[in-house]
Amino acid sequence: MACAARAGEDRRVALVPFSAIFVPDALASALSDEAWLEALLTVERALVRAQARAGVVPAEAADAVAAACDGPRLDPSSLAAEGRAPGNPVEPLVRALRARAGDEAAPFVHRGATSQDILDSAAMLVAREATRLVEADLDAVAGRCALLADEHRSTVMAARTLLQQAVPTTFGYKAAGWLAAVHRATGRLAAARDALPAQLGGAAGTLAAYEGDGIEILGLFADELGLREPTLPWHTHRAPVAELGAALAGAAGVLGKIARDVVLLAQTEVGEVAEAAGGVSSTMPHKQNPVGAVLALACERHARANAALLDEGLVAEHERAAGAWHAEWHALTSLLAAAGGAASAVRRSLEGLRVDAARMRSNLDAATLSEAQRLGIDARRPEDYLGSVDRFVDRALALLRP
Amino acid sequence: MACAARAGEDRRVALVPFSAIFVPDALASALSDEAWLEALLTVERALVRAQARAGVVPAEAADAVAAACDGPRLDPSSLAAEGRAPGNPVEPLVRALRARAGDEAAPFVHRGATSQDILDSAAMLVAREATRLVEADLDAVAGRCALLADEHRSTVMAARTLLQQAVPTTFGYKAAGWLAAVHRATGRLAAARDALPAQLGGAAGTLAAYEGDGIEILGLFADELGLREPTLPWHTHRAPVAELGAALAGAAGVLGKIARDVVLLAQTEVGEVAEAAGGVSSTMPHKQNPVGAVLALACERHARANAALLDEGLVAEHERAAGAWHAEWHALTSLLAAAGGAASAVRRSLEGLRVDAARMRSNLDAATLSEAQRLGIDARRPEDYLGSVDRFVDRALALLRP
Amino acid sequence: MACAARAGEDRRVALVPFSAIFVPDALASALSDEAWLEALLTVERALVRAQARAGVVPAEAADAVAAACDGPRLDPSSLAAEGRAPGNPVEPLVRALRARAGDEAAPFVHRGATSQDILDSAAMLVAREATRLVEADLDAVAGRCALLADEHRSTVMAARTLLQQAVPTTFGYKAAGWLAAVHRATGRLAAARDALPAQLGGAAGTLAAYEGDGIEILGLFADELGLREPTLPWHTHRAPVAELGAALAGAAGVLGKIARDVVLLAQTEVGEVAEAAGGVSSTMPHKQNPVGAVLALACERHARANAALLDEGLVAEHERAAGAWHAEWHALTSLLAAAGGAASAVRRSLEGLRVDAARMRSNLDAATLSEAQRLGIDARRPEDYLGSVDRFVDRALALLRP
Amino acid sequence: MACAARAGEDRRVALVPFSAIFVPDALASALSDEAWLEALLTVERALVRAQARAGVVPAEAADAVAAACDGPRLDPSSLAAEGRAPGNPVEPLVRALRARAGDEAAPFVHRGATSQDILDSAAMLVAREATRLVEADLDAVAGRCALLADEHRSTVMAARTLLQQAVPTTFGYKAAGWLAAVHRATGRLAAARDALPAQLGGAAGTLAAYEGDGIEILGLFADELGLREPTLPWHTHRAPVAELGAALAGAAGVLGKIARDVVLLAQTEVGEVAEAAGGVSSTMPHKQNPVGAVLALACERHARANAALLDEGLVAEHERAAGAWHAEWHALTSLLAAAGGAASAVRRSLEGLRVDAARMRSNLDAATLSEAQRLGIDARRPEDYLGSVDRFVDRALALLRP
Repeated sequence: MACAARAGEDRRVALVPFSAIFVPDALASALSDEAWLEALLTVERALVRAQARAGVVPAEAADAVAAACDGPRLDPSSLAAEGRAPGNPVEPLVRALRARAGDEAAPFVHRGATSQDILDSAAMLVAREATRLVEADLDAVAGRCALLADEHRSTVMAARTLLQQAVPTTFGYKAAGWLAAVHRATGRLAAARDALPAQLGGAAGTLAAYEGDGIEILGLFADELGLREPTLPWHTHRAPVAELGAALAGAAGVLGKIARDVVLLAQTEVGEVAEAAGGVSSTMPHKQNPVGAVLALACERHARANAALLDEGLVAEHERAAGAWHAEWHALTSLLAAAGGAASAVRRSLEGLRVDAARMRSNLDAATLSEAQRLGIDARRPEDYLGSVDRFVDRALALLRP
Repeated sequence: MACAARAGEDRRVALVPFSAIFVPDALASALSDEAWLEALLTVERALVRAQARAGVVPAEAADAVAAACDGPRLDPSSLAAEGRAPGNPVEPLVRALRARAGDEAAPFVHRGATSQDILDSAAMLVAREATRLVEADLDAVAGRCALLADEHRSTVMAARTLLQQAVPTTFGYKAAGWLAAVHRATGRLAAARDALPAQLGGAAGTLAAYEGDGIEILGLFADELGLREPTLPWHTHRAPVAELGAALAGAAGVLGKIARDVVLLAQTEVGEVAEAAGGVSSTMPHKQNPVGAVLALACERHARANAALLDEGLVAEHERAAGAWHAEWHALTSLLAAAGGAASAVRRSLEGLRVDAARMRSNLDAATLSEAQRLGIDARRPEDYLGSVDRFVDRALALLRP
Repeated sequence: MACAARAGEDRRVALVPFSAIFVPDALASALSDEAWLEALLTVERALVRAQARAGVVPAEAADAVAAACDGPRLDPSSLAAEGRAPGNPVEPLVRALRARAGDEAAPFVHRGATSQDILDSAAMLVAREATRLVEADLDAVAGRCALLADEHRSTVMAARTLLQQAVPTTFGYKAAGWLAAVHRATGRLAAARDALPAQLGGAAGTLAAYEGDGIEILGLFADELGLREPTLPWHTHRAPVAELGAALAGAAGVLGKIARDVVLLAQTEVGEVAEAAGGVSSTMPHKQNPVGAVLALACERHARANAALLDEGLVAEHERAAGAWHAEWHALTSLLAAAGGAASAVRRSLEGLRVDAARMRSNLDAATLSEAQRLGIDARRPEDYLGSVDRFVDRALALLRP
Repeated sequence: MACAARAGEDRRVALVPFSAIFVPDALASALSDEAWLEALLTVERALVRAQARAGVVPAEAADAVAAACDGPRLDPSSLAAEGRAPGNPVEPLVRALRARAGDEAAPFVHRGATSQDILDSAAMLVAREATRLVEADLDAVAGRCALLADEHRSTVMAARTLLQQAVPTTFGYKAAGWLAAVHRATGRLAAARDALPAQLGGAAGTLAAYEGDGIEILGLFADELGLREPTLPWHTHRAPVAELGAALAGAAGVLGKIARDVVLLAQTEVGEVAEAAGGVSSTMPHKQNPVGAVLALACERHARANAALLDEGLVAEHERAAGAWHAEWHALTSLLAAAGGAASAVRRSLEGLRVDAARMRSNLDAATLSEAQRLGIDARRPEDYLGSVDRFVDRALALLRP
């Protein structure tokens, strides 16, 4: 397993040690420094193009700036190192682009914008792509829940309250509950993603450098990026970020609920489900660990913590926050990685889930059954007491229909 | 100032010492144990009425149950003390109501429901009323922001990024930014409040005790309470609570942003605004403390922390969570109190805000003005460089128009 | 400052609805507004006495001030209502005391102090008493763990990793692990409680009003209160509060671990332990809910959230924080209530815990035993493979010996 | 376990985009996947050596295992990818080492240990090294505070409460307050670091595979690593991690307090301090942004959030937590990076801090001075009213003396 030493030392902090355990490769790429840099360049390109469309930048200059953005790949680590002094990576990036663009086009690089315009807009691009990946895994989870709900409509099992057997239910209904929850969370997430705005305010949100053309340029810029045009610049009004954060944490929470149920159902003493690819143990080959569900539970904690950090960022000073904004970059990235990690892990967990219907039936405690009987329920005829359940399953399945 | 000793010792924990400092009286009442108890009784009443409407409970029995609910005032502290053993106050409440209802009607008290049905539905009622109070204060804050935005369209001041003067802006634009943020947060909050669902699932969410009538009764029950009918029972799918929490924290965050701005503008060295009722200091009569803003900042922290707690509750075990649900009651109450405390405090702060336009103008740093000049801006003609700003103010003001 | 008659109306927000479910009565009293007010009066008394001992206040004046503090009971709700304008309850309290003390003694009421001196010192008194109550319950929990560890040294059961049976262990060892954890947490908590300092800095931490006597008076004041003398005033250096918070959250976390284990062991399918006073269910008399453990898990969440709030308070502006300090009062109170609620609930849970040793033995999965065998272990002779376990139990038991 | 060639592609998630902005290079290295892998290998080496010293593993076999660990560099990304299935990187690592060690030595690789033993012990090594780096920056911060405290003993400035000028103080005293706070936080951090324990419990904490030798091997293993021997294995008793976390968050909080003060003092309208390397703005060359302080404030938020995550991990199921443990790895890494980032940034901020003593004097508001006068203070003679302050400065400076 020897790998050649990497020539260039990577000074980046991979804050998730061994992150591939948690984060799917495509999502890791979408959140990499390379992806962030690409997004920054896309934004600078869009900025100059919007101004060319508005007629305030010559077309040739706009082309020269775009060419500078398209040029040889810049090194994110170097930008980061140079960004320490100004406190963000945009300032060195702009310097690099101006040097490339040539004397005539240089003044049109980053014209009228502030670093936060570029970084916020890039963050929205990164977030949009990453969120789509998360949504794809959520959709797969919902689909799998639907299959389970339908397939196990008649699979009687114990409902458990405070982890005590309560009365009979069906596994189909449990999966239908997961489905409805995932569906709601995904819809909320897609709405938050769809609402992500472009950022353009100039030095302090006044668009002063554009004189009378500011609002027109803002609209064209948003159009170039395919992001929403905001009512006002939002340098220190962070609702779009906080709301995306809340939606991601909401999704992670639902995934955590499914994962917790799976872990509990997979207990040795319960044995009602098992993950197909039960985690191999380094010491105990007989174990069948529900690793997907376990990793999802780990991810949920990080999603939640980072969403709270984004909420904290709402309290922003004047026209640029002194710290809250800078904390957002990692909070948003970590949150996307964690929510996506949870979605991917639950997907793996459910896609291979082995359901032991016989064990579900036999686990139904004698007391649970006699309690059912006390309530006038003949446990041998589930159709007598699970009528509402079946209709609830139908309701949940209907959510996925167009 | 002597007050008669209260006859009955109150064992309640007032977790906000001297809570009237933070929480408006009306909101405190809406969140009191008495209000919670009243909501529990309303829910039990609605439950039996819904079943009477469905024809599964005799009208006289329903009347008897309602009369039991209307009877002499129960003592919340005693219910709480008795609720320690079962882990919630509904079990002793149901016992009390059954004793009152008489042998014939007793079986129809709480029929088919579980404690969580009653407590969750009551929580939604409490939350709805409290949220409306919060919204009223938010609306007043928005209105006050609109007045400031309009009145100070031409009040030039320094925009500040990282707390350094950047370029000129107007105070009207700053207030317009507050306005747009409050408007967005209030809309989100009203939507979350409007989506609050009734809860009815029976012992474990299957509505088993209602046999085939479960879903009809659920609909009638929601109708009685004026709450939404949920797709499925949501005993362990807590999105409605978490989403309300996120909306409340979002509102508190926006209020915190305004408050932070006020505190910073009110600094002795800045002196651009002052609260009318500047807090009296016990030692320094010359001080003019921005107490409203300060209290709002304190409240924002509690709102955020408790919203995160509600997010944590999404990860709920099986058909009733072992702890997460019980933690919700105080988290939701604290969150409503804190968000409302922030709204009320910012309202007080802004309603009496004294704006010193002359100081705003004179604070504009020489460097800021010469920087403006460098950008081709003649600082003596703000209309030249604040054109976008005025249009942004118009956009924000338009939000409040029907 | 007339005390309006309150017709039974209590404007306090009981942020834990039905708080007696969670918080023991003695702790609720120790955290009540009445207890806070008593602590404020104790501090004002100590302040004037310290100055009398330092010879800078006449003895008669000190007596007059003390008498004013001892006078008819003040009403906390009125103080709170009057405290809204200045932003704290000390300002109206001082006015009331000065009015009582008479013209000659009035100048010696609160002499040289700021509101935060009084409130912080009172908070330390409240926290000290409440923490002692928490420690008493922790000690009882530790004692009960020790009994279980000793009694069940030879009670073989399954160890479970990721909730899968792994290899055999003993219940005594599990209880020994709880014991060691509680012991550590209690020690840390007692150390944090013992380090609680008095606060005295005057208007801005300089003790200016005492001229050259400041540090002597600080020492005497701390001595009067039985609190530590701080190196410096700590108005905006909140380590004592944050460290107490971390210790309380640490204790709550350990209690949560025990509670989680109990809930899992009490599952219907596991059935290895049961709480004696299993929570009565309003609908399912057959259930035996582990209510103590469940309530402890709810409390743990609140303890943790409020400890994080106290950490947030470390970032305090200049010589008095604009919001962070005000947020501390409820955070600290909630944290003490929650940690104490957890300790009390786990104590109840363990004191009546029924341990089913036969079920523990029979639950040991065939696979677990054969795995043991594969490792060369003869499951019929636990002494062969549980030798270290027994010595660990001894180590844990030794912790409780003086 | 073939190591697929990666064409320059790094699948790691760098959760801090452009992390070099925040995290010092040495700390980034100490927290890299490479450092984690090195620590895992160190632990496997120590494990076999301890058993050789205990006489239960042949010396040659121990050498062979050590040689396998010393062999060609393994690729952390591949380990991570292979670790997804078992849920941790140790399982594939052990397989690789066994393959290398040869048939005879292979059984002695990882003998008697579980993955968590290795990962926890490695985490303690990583944390120890990283914490030392954080402490070094904290010491430098303390040293710089001491210089400022001494140099500015007589630099009169306004003390500010709720951001309003209160009474005169000195900048030396403000720096002394910082110093005392940093000193306390560093001491607590060093104590937590010094208490970090080795982890060795085997499959489920019973050390069963070592039969009677378990506790001796545990002691030797801790000795090999220079870590503390724990009372018991702590797989699900996470106080050592949570306490380190609380200490790191405590340090970050103190650094945040200093940073907040610097940002406020550096405001254009206050102008009492400036960072030497004031951040260059991409649009506003006249600005002098306090970038070090701003970045520290961003880091503080992440430190606090991740410390709360570690507290959450205290509630761990049975003998291995299903998710809480897995969430620790990134929480701990992020926390160390964030605390270190804060320490490094504040160090930069203070090392170049320009203090404008004249501005401090002239900023003293007329009202502040007349208030001082009202209190009988002649503002022209600071020695009259700042006597306690000077003694407090001495107390703080004495803390640094051995």
